[in-house]
Amino acid sequence: MPDLMNTKKAVTLLSGGLDSATAAAIAASEGYTLYCLSFDYGQRHKQELESAALTARSLGSAQHMVLSADMRKLGGSALTSSSIHVPKDRNTHEMESGGVPVTYVPARNTIFLSYALAWAEVLGSSDIFIGVNAVDYSGYPDCRPEFITAFERLANLSTKASVEGGIDFKIHAPLIHMTKAEIIQMGEKLGVDFSLTWSCYHPDAEGYPCGRCDSCKIRAKGFREAGVIDHAAKKRGQKRSKNELAG
Amino acid sequence: MPDLMNTKKAVTLLSGGLDSATAAAIAASEGYTLYCLSFDYGQRHKQELESAALTARSLGSAQHMVLSADMRKLGGSALTSSSIHVPKDRNTHEMESGGVPVTYVPARNTIFLSYALAWAEVLGSSDIFIGVNAVDYSGYPDCRPEFITAFERLANLSTKASVEGGIDFKIHAPLIHMTKAEIIQMGEKLGVDFSLTWSCYHPDAEGYPCGRCDSCKIRAKGFREAGVIDHAAKKRGQKRSKNELAG
Repeated sequence: MPDLMNTKKAVTLLSGGLDSATAAAIAASEGYTLYCLSFDYGQRHKQELESAALTARSLGSAQHMVLSADMRKLGGSALTSSSIHVPKDRNTHEMESGGVPVTYVPARNTIFLSYALAWAEVLGSSDIFIGVNAVDYSGYPDCRPEFITAFERLANLSTKASVEGGIDFKIHAPLIHMTKAEIIQMGEKLGVDFSLTWSCYHPDAEGYPCGRCDSCKIRAKGFREAGVIDHAAKKRGQKRSKNELAG
Repeated sequence: MPDLMNTKKAVTLLSGGLDSATAAAIAASEGYTLYCLSFDYGQRHKQELESAALTARSLGSAQHMVLSADMRKLGGSALTSSSIHVPKDRNTHEMESGGVPVTYVPARNTIFLSYALAWAEVLGSSDIFIGVNAVDYSGYPDCRPEFITAFERLANLSTKASVEGGIDFKIHAPLIHMTKAEIIQMGEKLGVDFSLTWSCYHPDAEGYPCGRCDSCKIRAKGFREAGVIDHAAKKRGQKRSKNELAG
């Protein structure tokens, strides 16, 4: 149990995926006490939240808060609306040239960071960690450095803590310029248990990763390039062949 | 019923109070079809949401969406935490010199605007109206022009609609430089039914406005200075004397 009085606190967004797990591990390695924040936002698969809870525990976080974010009512994404289809079997070229994918959730990171900011203010923390990444192409506009900079600016104009308390909020996006392989190598070095993390957008009927959505393919490619074994795929009985995963 | 195909759409944040009702009426007067958005954010009193629903209907809105925003779990405000006391009987000097009041809710407008942005993107709208006001002193940092400008900048960096679709999001804060009396006169001119609106932070046991919290006092002063009768106070059996309201 960390000594809560003598450490600096960080609110770390935890999606259940490997990027946010690595970002949280970086925060821990820098001496922050972790206050992990996840969202039940009507995503198709709840496995993400279980992975987030397991990861928060494995990183020794002081608290793991799960907030409901009422985004399914708004729709507009394959991840929150059952009427939009999750693409499968796209190759790297198709992913890179297809523009912002249908799995984009309108204003998701803006909403998540807003809650993180609120919690940081209540906790007396000035540091928020988010595992966004602009290199391995996901095409999400709210994963780019200019978005993070704009949010940080907003944070420092919108809160009592900043305007009255002189707190200088910092949005840490330590993975933003790393490739997926570099993120995996970094996580491996920091002891992240990737077998707890979850990436698939469209698990099969038995709850296993599909191996065919963009997220499964980017994950498989990342582990391959990092030269690291993905124990999650093994553990969850991911039966697809290496060739199939390679796309 | 507005012709939804041939009008421009605006997402209008509606709190149940008179400011947001007036901001929405301004949007309607400018030819926008209204998509009103309110939040159940764990506020102490649900009367606000009833007032928002009545106001949305009276303004002929195309839709009124109420989203749950899980802010009570975060705490940190007299409006969402039962352990923080709502101040009463403060005079204007005390309100103006007291700094950011305890009724400040951490990052509230950032969270609300983030959802409004998500909905605007799904609707194909580029216009969001919010009834914030920086003149009659509420002391909230997220009611200032620099906050609105920073959010607008963020909106145009964070969405598929802006980055890929070329949408230029505009955050309209038409009341930002108006006094409460000017807002009331404007609303009166546009036919806002103020008797439907709700301002009190701390209604009494029978559900009537207390007449003693900052919000009741600012409202009473505004109506007095505008030379307009507040039918809400009359209708809800607000029994306190004019002197008492004047503080």
